[in-house]
Amino acid sequence: MAEDYREMWSSLGLNLEGHAGLLAVLSDAYQNIYLSQKERPAAMQYFDFVVSEVHGLRIVELLKEKTAGKLIVGTFCVYVPEELILALDGVSNGLCAGADVGTEEAEKFIPRNTCALIKGFMGFKLAGLCPYVESADLIIGETTCDGKKKAYEIFDEITKKVYVMELPNKKSDDGKLLWKNEIKRLADKLSDVTGKTITLDKLKEASRVVNAKRQALKRLSDLRAYDPAPISGLDALLVNQISFYDDPVRFTAKVNELCDELDERTKQGKGVAPKGTPRILVSGSPMAIPNWKLHWIIESSGGIVVGEEACVGERNFRDLLENFSTVDEGIQKMADRSMGINCACFTPNDDRLTDINSMSQKLHSQGVVHYALQFCTPYLVEAFRAKNSVESAGLPFLRIETDYSLEDAGQLKTRVEAFIEMIKDEKRS
Amino acid sequence: MAEDYREMWSSLGLNLEGHAGLLAVLSDAYQNIYLSQKERPAAMQYFDFVVSEVHGLRIVELLKEKTAGKLIVGTFCVYVPEELILALDGVSNGLCAGADVGTEEAEKFIPRNTCALIKGFMGFKLAGLCPYVESADLIIGETTCDGKKKAYEIFDEITKKVYVMELPNKKSDDGKLLWKNEIKRLADKLSDVTGKTITLDKLKEASRVVNAKRQALKRLSDLRAYDPAPISGLDALLVNQISFYDDPVRFTAKVNELCDELDERTKQGKGVAPKGTPRILVSGSPMAIPNWKLHWIIESSGGIVVGEEACVGERNFRDLLENFSTVDEGIQKMADRSMGINCACFTPNDDRLTDINSMSQKLHSQGVVHYALQFCTPYLVEAFRAKNSVESAGLPFLRIETDYSLEDAGQLKTRVEAFIEMIKDEKRS
Repeated sequence: MAEDYREMWSSLGLNLEGHAGLLAVLSDAYQNIYLSQKERPAAMQYFDFVVSEVHGLRIVELLKEKTAGKLIVGTFCVYVPEELILALDGVSNGLCAGADVGTEEAEKFIPRNTCALIKGFMGFKLAGLCPYVESADLIIGETTCDGKKKAYEIFDEITKKVYVMELPNKKSDDGKLLWKNEIKRLADKLSDVTGKTITLDKLKEASRVVNAKRQALKRLSDLRAYDPAPISGLDALLVNQISFYDDPVRFTAKVNELCDELDERTKQGKGVAPKGTPRILVSGSPMAIPNWKLHWIIESSGGIVVGEEACVGERNFRDLLENFSTVDEGIQKMADRSMGINCACFTPNDDRLTDINSMSQKLHSQGVVHYALQFCTPYLVEAFRAKNSVESAGLPFLRIETDYSLEDAGQLKTRVEAFIEMIKDEKRS
Repeated sequence: MAEDYREMWSSLGLNLEGHAGLLAVLSDAYQNIYLSQKERPAAMQYFDFVVSEVHGLRIVELLKEKTAGKLIVGTFCVYVPEELILALDGVSNGLCAGADVGTEEAEKFIPRNTCALIKGFMGFKLAGLCPYVESADLIIGETTCDGKKKAYEIFDEITKKVYVMELPNKKSDDGKLLWKNEIKRLADKLSDVTGKTITLDKLKEASRVVNAKRQALKRLSDLRAYDPAPISGLDALLVNQISFYDDPVRFTAKVNELCDELDERTKQGKGVAPKGTPRILVSGSPMAIPNWKLHWIIESSGGIVVGEEACVGERNFRDLLENFSTVDEGIQKMADRSMGINCACFTPNDDRLTDINSMSQKLHSQGVVHYALQFCTPYLVEAFRAKNSVESAGLPFLRIETDYSLEDAGQLKTRVEAFIEMIKDEKRS
């Protein structure tokens, strides 16, 4: 860390000793997984810096924004509309959920058989290791899965900050109406808390900011279609993870700088791995920072990840919020936009199967690795239908169910290596 | 079995050999668990008979009803309104889900980490052992949990019979409206399939039949408040389980006969266990027939189960459908009635915590055993808040997480015995 933030962390109530330990572990992991990569784009330096300051400078910024009257809002899910938060003078930030932290504490409040992401956000809070949850004025949850839906009840008892949006279970007309009304209610809630009113200008400005971010991420995604891939899956994943934490305007500029460099690479035919390296699409559960496990395993096994059909990935940025001329129309389009996101929490969710195959095609993926966190029932069950759909489209499919621990890394690596060998064999034959 | 049903089972496509094996195992279990009980009410003979004919005579009846033009509807959940099915010339029946059957087959379609009930209904179908699923013209699912919501997609691919009702995640005004509309849509669906139209008279008659069943079950429940308990928890559970399978009019008459006998017992101070036997309220996940594991463990460990705050139990019969004078009003009241059922699938679900404590009080329970199937996330998470609530009300609380296998029976028995000893100690002190 460039500066000493201990006073700030202490004032936020963090456990300083535990936090120092966490940062040391993360720094080592980052060194091993990220900084050891070959042919990294120079523009990744910015994102390396963001990671190194994710609990430092970024929190300083958030606290400054808070002092300046902004509402600091913690979120967990792409269905929570970022535009709305920005339009009501809020700052939207992800919370800590991507590492095995405070597990023992978390298991006093939630079952052992809970997915690592939920245990993560509970554990980070209980262990006093997440400056984001402590800085937040409001935490917005959603009813996307049984685990989160029920854990938020307990998380609210602990933090007293949780507001839960109800997502329907089907994209029926009634479900869509319910969701639109939920967005309206969120607008009211944010107005109540901030004392501000939403205006068309503010919503337009907010959507411009968020759309620009989405377009930059989309541009990055499109560049990954090249062979050789101009950027590693690990680095692209990191950029997508950081999209939930960084200032959106600065972030967008930096992603575009990165894309300029990647543009140049594609013109020169330069990549991070040799042309012909087996290309993998990852699809499934969200990967919260610093969950880099699967990408690391794939890319250290001779493959390259070319896309993420995931919430930390394509689902977050594919569609824009556009063409509205009243606040109400903006909210309607916000609802429509998010109903275009195909999370496994919906039934039926056939459009996700279409998304996987169309992303595979667009990104020239040669195999799909389906990733589900252990106990993430919606994705675990949907994996069965995804397998049929991907294999019918002629691509091999590998189903991975794992958590954040590295205990199964050797076993996963063996399976991933065999999968990549199979892709190579198919190409030869 | 009194008759040879092999021809019928064969025509339904059952696996005759596997089915014979299943019936033999069930018959042994029933002998050990049920017929060995002391002081059983004579009126339980009817229910013993029903169990012995649950895949025989009852299926003969259903097939006769089908021939007579009735629609055979398979259901899994108390939110699916039975009145509506009856009013549209349907017969509502539960499906097989209460035993470890076809697990290996089921795990080819759904994850290993799926609750035993879901694995059960998939496994029974895949192993060709459930005459109910084969007799059904239509299976009505619901979005009560991630596991069922997503497994129904696959179950429909296998059976081609599944229709899913969307239950909301919150009991908000929008959620309630959505649910009312879902009931209307179900009415339309049933009309489409049967060619019949719902009328006020038919709905009134259907609600009379179903209310009478609920009132009989309520009467049975109330009788369990006596000390000594006039009926075992095992027998009362069985009656509740059979309520989902038997002809409702005959069933109601037989439950009332049983209650007449129990009335007599309470007058004589006669019970199935000595006065002062530790009284346990069970609360949690549904127990599909033949899942008798927890009651068996409790009642063979010196306790008596006096109530089930569960869907196979109180949630199924507590509230009636009454006071409507149009079909639309009936549907509205049906929706209102089911929104009074406090399943852990809702957030928040504080009313369930109130229900547990008020049932405890009413039934003079001295301890609550919270039962959740392994991987049943809604109940597993809610158990933490239930514990606080029950303990705040001054009662001890034991959290059980299990499946259908008997592997953990010894360990559970040890925990239950310790819990019951603790209750005895508290009474002495």
